[in-house]
Amino acid sequence: MSTPKSGKGKVCLAYSGGLDTSTILVWLLEQGYEVVCFLADVGQEEDWDKVRNKATKLGASKMIISDLKKEFVEELCFRAIQCNAIYQSRYLLGTSLARPVIARGMMKAAKDEGCDYVSHGCTGKGNDQVRFELAFLAIDPTIKIISPWRLPEFFNRFQGREDLLTYAAEKKIPVTSTKAAPWSMDDNIAHCSYEAGILEDPKLPPPQGLWTRTDDPEKAPDTPEDITIKWEKGLPVGLKVGGKTITDSLELFIALNALGKKHGIGRIDIVEDRFIGIKSRGCYDSPAMTILRSGHLDLEGLVMDGKVRTLRDQFVTHNWSELLYNGLYFSPERQFVENSLLYSQQEVNGSTDLRLYKGGVYNRGRSSETSNLYSEEESSMDSLIDFSPVDTTGFISIQAIRLKKFGQQALDQGKGLGQQ
Amino acid sequence: MSTPKSGKGKVCLAYSGGLDTSTILVWLLEQGYEVVCFLADVGQEEDWDKVRNKATKLGASKMIISDLKKEFVEELCFRAIQCNAIYQSRYLLGTSLARPVIARGMMKAAKDEGCDYVSHGCTGKGNDQVRFELAFLAIDPTIKIISPWRLPEFFNRFQGREDLLTYAAEKKIPVTSTKAAPWSMDDNIAHCSYEAGILEDPKLPPPQGLWTRTDDPEKAPDTPEDITIKWEKGLPVGLKVGGKTITDSLELFIALNALGKKHGIGRIDIVEDRFIGIKSRGCYDSPAMTILRSGHLDLEGLVMDGKVRTLRDQFVTHNWSELLYNGLYFSPERQFVENSLLYSQQEVNGSTDLRLYKGGVYNRGRSSETSNLYSEEESSMDSLIDFSPVDTTGFISIQAIRLKKFGQQALDQGKGLGQQ
Amino acid sequence: MSTPKSGKGKVCLAYSGGLDTSTILVWLLEQGYEVVCFLADVGQEEDWDKVRNKATKLGASKMIISDLKKEFVEELCFRAIQCNAIYQSRYLLGTSLARPVIARGMMKAAKDEGCDYVSHGCTGKGNDQVRFELAFLAIDPTIKIISPWRLPEFFNRFQGREDLLTYAAEKKIPVTSTKAAPWSMDDNIAHCSYEAGILEDPKLPPPQGLWTRTDDPEKAPDTPEDITIKWEKGLPVGLKVGGKTITDSLELFIALNALGKKHGIGRIDIVEDRFIGIKSRGCYDSPAMTILRSGHLDLEGLVMDGKVRTLRDQFVTHNWSELLYNGLYFSPERQFVENSLLYSQQEVNGSTDLRLYKGGVYNRGRSSETSNLYSEEESSMDSLIDFSPVDTTGFISIQAIRLKKFGQQALDQGKGLGQQ
Amino acid sequence: MSTPKSGKGKVCLAYSGGLDTSTILVWLLEQGYEVVCFLADVGQEEDWDKVRNKATKLGASKMIISDLKKEFVEELCFRAIQCNAIYQSRYLLGTSLARPVIARGMMKAAKDEGCDYVSHGCTGKGNDQVRFELAFLAIDPTIKIISPWRLPEFFNRFQGREDLLTYAAEKKIPVTSTKAAPWSMDDNIAHCSYEAGILEDPKLPPPQGLWTRTDDPEKAPDTPEDITIKWEKGLPVGLKVGGKTITDSLELFIALNALGKKHGIGRIDIVEDRFIGIKSRGCYDSPAMTILRSGHLDLEGLVMDGKVRTLRDQFVTHNWSELLYNGLYFSPERQFVENSLLYSQQEVNGSTDLRLYKGGVYNRGRSSETSNLYSEEESSMDSLIDFSPVDTTGFISIQAIRLKKFGQQALDQGKGLGQQ
Repeated sequence: MSTPKSGKGKVCLAYSGGLDTSTILVWLLEQGYEVVCFLADVGQEEDWDKVRNKATKLGASKMIISDLKKEFVEELCFRAIQCNAIYQSRYLLGTSLARPVIARGMMKAAKDEGCDYVSHGCTGKGNDQVRFELAFLAIDPTIKIISPWRLPEFFNRFQGREDLLTYAAEKKIPVTSTKAAPWSMDDNIAHCSYEAGILEDPKLPPPQGLWTRTDDPEKAPDTPEDITIKWEKGLPVGLKVGGKTITDSLELFIALNALGKKHGIGRIDIVEDRFIGIKSRGCYDSPAMTILRSGHLDLEGLVMDGKVRTLRDQFVTHNWSELLYNGLYFSPERQFVENSLLYSQQEVNGSTDLRLYKGGVYNRGRSSETSNLYSEEESSMDSLIDFSPVDTTGFISIQAIRLKKFGQQALDQGKGLGQQ
Repeated sequence: MSTPKSGKGKVCLAYSGGLDTSTILVWLLEQGYEVVCFLADVGQEEDWDKVRNKATKLGASKMIISDLKKEFVEELCFRAIQCNAIYQSRYLLGTSLARPVIARGMMKAAKDEGCDYVSHGCTGKGNDQVRFELAFLAIDPTIKIISPWRLPEFFNRFQGREDLLTYAAEKKIPVTSTKAAPWSMDDNIAHCSYEAGILEDPKLPPPQGLWTRTDDPEKAPDTPEDITIKWEKGLPVGLKVGGKTITDSLELFIALNALGKKHGIGRIDIVEDRFIGIKSRGCYDSPAMTILRSGHLDLEGLVMDGKVRTLRDQFVTHNWSELLYNGLYFSPERQFVENSLLYSQQEVNGSTDLRLYKGGVYNRGRSSETSNLYSEEESSMDSLIDFSPVDTTGFISIQAIRLKKFGQQALDQGKGLGQQ
Repeated sequence: MSTPKSGKGKVCLAYSGGLDTSTILVWLLEQGYEVVCFLADVGQEEDWDKVRNKATKLGASKMIISDLKKEFVEELCFRAIQCNAIYQSRYLLGTSLARPVIARGMMKAAKDEGCDYVSHGCTGKGNDQVRFELAFLAIDPTIKIISPWRLPEFFNRFQGREDLLTYAAEKKIPVTSTKAAPWSMDDNIAHCSYEAGILEDPKLPPPQGLWTRTDDPEKAPDTPEDITIKWEKGLPVGLKVGGKTITDSLELFIALNALGKKHGIGRIDIVEDRFIGIKSRGCYDSPAMTILRSGHLDLEGLVMDGKVRTLRDQFVTHNWSELLYNGLYFSPERQFVENSLLYSQQEVNGSTDLRLYKGGVYNRGRSSETSNLYSEEESSMDSLIDFSPVDTTGFISIQAIRLKKFGQQALDQGKGLGQQ
Repeated sequence: MSTPKSGKGKVCLAYSGGLDTSTILVWLLEQGYEVVCFLADVGQEEDWDKVRNKATKLGASKMIISDLKKEFVEELCFRAIQCNAIYQSRYLLGTSLARPVIARGMMKAAKDEGCDYVSHGCTGKGNDQVRFELAFLAIDPTIKIISPWRLPEFFNRFQGREDLLTYAAEKKIPVTSTKAAPWSMDDNIAHCSYEAGILEDPKLPPPQGLWTRTDDPEKAPDTPEDITIKWEKGLPVGLKVGGKTITDSLELFIALNALGKKHGIGRIDIVEDRFIGIKSRGCYDSPAMTILRSGHLDLEGLVMDGKVRTLRDQFVTHNWSELLYNGLYFSPERQFVENSLLYSQQEVNGSTDLRLYKGGVYNRGRSSETSNLYSEEESSMDSLIDFSPVDTTGFISIQAIRLKKFGQQALDQGKGLGQQ
């Protein structure tokens, strides 16, 4: 993990084309490394050719761009949906979900190219450095990592944007815009995140024009739009909208993103706890994930046993979400928890009707052909078919044994439970 | 729990003025009991004088109406907000929250009136019978309960609405409308619930005109409305809206209900698991609770320690919600859990800005004068004040010790974690 | 569940040969039923021929005795060991473990014999009625159950032992001994339980001569005995003792029972909470289970990832134990939890050395050829191979970010954490 | 956290008189610091005067010895007993419990003496450095810490015991014995721990003569000894043994240590997971803690509500133990959990009889004058007073609703639950 000052070696660098990673690229070359650049296509907005040209122009011996969208959606986003994953009751984990796929893709590239090192441009106070590096080391325990923003020789030299710009000018690194964006963004097919800069004041609402993945709910169509999602084993396998049916996983996800964008669905604005113990404010818009989560939750109400659901909520949903947030995807505990998750989804088959309208997702109906758990007959308050009301008397009496003692003890102590 | 056929005795009956409890009232009198009627005002829509007159006309020796709105809001609804209470990820517990207050008020009335029995009109398949009776027995372990809908002599005699109407005609019980409502409703200041009847088909959306506590989001104002809620120890203590500030707990809750109604906030439509193990479909609209929960969650992000939050979410939120749903308010375990809840709220002080718009509640900003947990300086990705980036290298390295072994073991077994 | 007074039908009765079930047998015949008796051999002390003869002599049309020892040990006892199962921190679940196997065997017999009913002699206040009947109904939701001790026509007629003896005399039911035992016992290969009678006073120690599965530790050999247990996937697959190796599951279990008996291992005496909410005092001796549990726990320390262990302890161990105790073996939640259990045991391979001595089991050593998690090199405080002490500084600093704020806030409030 | 090479300043050093901390003392002086030495008396074996003299002779400006035994026992050990605290199912946390008390005492000394720094001799791979430093920083977020074993200039200079001995000779540091002990020990009133050295091979049993706090069970008295412990709010308030009663907390604890030592009670030998993710082998003997834990668990069975116990076991016992192990005593989450712990102990009053014999603690009887939860009458299988057996039928039927559906679904899918 120390930085060889002069020694030669090959580095695989996570390269985005921006000022930070361009600086790192040049700086690594300057240190005497050979650099292979890597960029994962996980659905972000990007001018791929421009990135490719910039990397090679700056001296990268290769620029690898891997399309990981499908595995990202199928292995991570859909798993999160099966799990009803959510961090601190509100964040749908868009960034966290992308990291394992990107890290795996990059390690594959590093191996294919015979790299001794991997490197990235994450800062020293964020979650992403943890997520990437734990993934790198779990995938290859012998890999060496160069994290410039945590190396004194780098972070002391580049103490602010001005230093980077000066270096860029000096090294002829093209800079798209000299004006710093007033916040930082990270996007992928699951969401776009916005943080830092002017967002750091949690009292202020995010500015107009911040959101990229969702239109303003206040400007969304006045007419709601109804859709139907079909599920198998907790996975979305069909989307019916406007007479059309989409079954390909990636197309379905993209179509839901478009629908959610149009109707302004999936914005959140929170203060969250980073893994390293710092609170930070983040804004996220994740349209498809928000719609899918609502439908999945709704179907589970119909087809999942109540006790299994309780255990699953406590064990799987909470832990899987926290593990992903904290960068522990490549860990025995994530595998352990995910084994339970998959088991819990075996009978989650059916169909859910949803209405999309001005920022909201409304459940309108749900059905399943394979589950017998819901029964109109049985559910009916009036029907006594296969139900003896007298049984409930016994049920209550037995439950009350313990509570009567509790109440009696309270009475004996002069603080009966009936007192306000 | 057995029904004395002829013996005399005094019964306190939960009386709503409807066909069911009117029938029970007359039937109890017919059996030779003296009957005192009780009705709690927990904020439902009701013509109180009409109920009072009907009860006495039918032969009740007394009709007691208790205004429990304030204690309901302060002791139960606000506790649920402090807890972020939610059942099965979606239901805000409106009915469950009212039951303990009603049961306690009724037991007080029963005691004041010297009743030997309490009675109610809950059916044998629902949650409410359990909630009421466990509360009755915990408050007074010697109380005797008459549950007509679980007594064969009653439920065999009244097998459907027709039987009730025939009996009503015979006994001169006034019947408001001969047309059965196509679903059943229960309302209080926290929400209105809708279930049974045509709602029992979970495939179909709830009909137009069902909702009483919320206007249709699609017809809500086109202009959003911004409000500010002030919090102390996790309790809402001030509501600023349109230049006005409300600080009285009950007025504040009522004002939020009005705001939420206007903007169509708080509708949910789910299939849930009843305590007795039957799945049922329920629709609920709870405007004030929905707004308050969103604001409370948002403030906690700013002021609650992340580890405490994780423990609280797993232990308190889940268990308190489930206990309330299952009618276990008057239990040692609810007291045990609530002790933790209150402890967790000591520092939840601050202010939250919310936007209400067409069914949605949007967090717009949050602040606290008493908490130091969030720091713009510290949160900032760029600032290195009081932060050494090198530390994170150590943090990651130590976390990785375990993961590297895991990865190595996987490699040794030929199934390296980098494989897809 | 109602009792047909005169109708004909075939009943499969859980028959032990004792006074209670003999009375039930004759009473069922008297009511007009045909009765097939069933007795599971789960390793209890029994004179099988005597039971068989008694049943047929009393009028049973058949007496079925099924040897279920092997499936009991392999499917239930070993699963409990893999799980480190324990109820309320102390009870090893001996009785609870046997119930699912017995219920399944009996339902198979009932089906083979074309029975319409199953019946048993469990009392109305215990756990076993719940365990048996939930199992019966999950296995065949249409089965009808006759529980005499919960039928008024039966329990009102037989209000005490005297009534049973009178009936026995009248019906010529042979009674082994006229003297009531001063407590009740239930034994199987996993343990013997002792409860009721003079044991109901929890202040008094169990009398001399109570225990049947363990010799008095105070009279156990003065010389310790060392054994080695070999494990695969958390299952005991070999027992080395005195130069001999046993690998057959049933023989291994029986040998451990003998060793444990000799050394007085596995007695417990507790007050526990029954499922129905009543506290009761139970004494249990379970030698093999106690030895195996100790060895299994010890091996897991060596080979199981620490985080997986924490999650497993919280989720699997607790819930599986409670589900088994409460008779919920045939439930979706037990299957859900057990799926995780099995997953957690995949790498639990190795060998454990144990010393048995006067009531105690002492771990003496453990090893594994398949796990890399423990490393002498790495564990060593002195060795710095593959470890940079500076990393720990960072680890601590990052952990401290949150705690320093907490401490500062306490100082600011004048209640610094250093105050006692 | 950086080490001022030449600057002056005052350091409070945790000093034990051993080779390591003597070396650190001299080295710190050599670096130009003034050093105040601190040693907490938490019940370890020590020649206090010798330590005092050695420190001042080596150049410490002061040697502070604080008697913290009573606060250690009352605030930490007894809290652990109330909690039934245990780490990874076996370790009673002796070392972890002492750390917060020592850290607090040392920070008080540092403040009294106006120290700028604190320092200690913990190695970089253990738990204690984490426990001490997190405590230091929470108590005073501005304190500066010198951890020589993590400073390259120190650990590179002293790479083994030889280097320390050479330095000692050179600096005239008296060395008690030139022979290195074959393992390291840490003792306090709660236990003695043994690890490292020859114990690092987990296959081998700990050698004869290792244990200092317990006599060999095989040489313990042949006659058992019976004692009675009285409890109030979960705290031991009286010990009756051989006609004598001890009520002072510290005397009681010391007496139990002596009894446990004599009877060989409380040895454990495990492989555990350190906080930093390394597995290590530890041996511990903790006689008083083992006896008290057994008695406390036993009393809780009698007086604690079963549902509260389940929640407490899952939430409090597990988390408190893990937090203490990981050095998070001075944290908001420990306070949060401990608040629940104390609440849970309010009714844990009574008396427990225990037998001590050759390594074992046997519960012999328990009673309480303040709890009504256990009732012989109610517990009795025969008594029908205040119990209607018919109720249990209803209880079971309601429980079975869900399970019958599960069984039916399994049958419909051709894998009925009755199949083996």
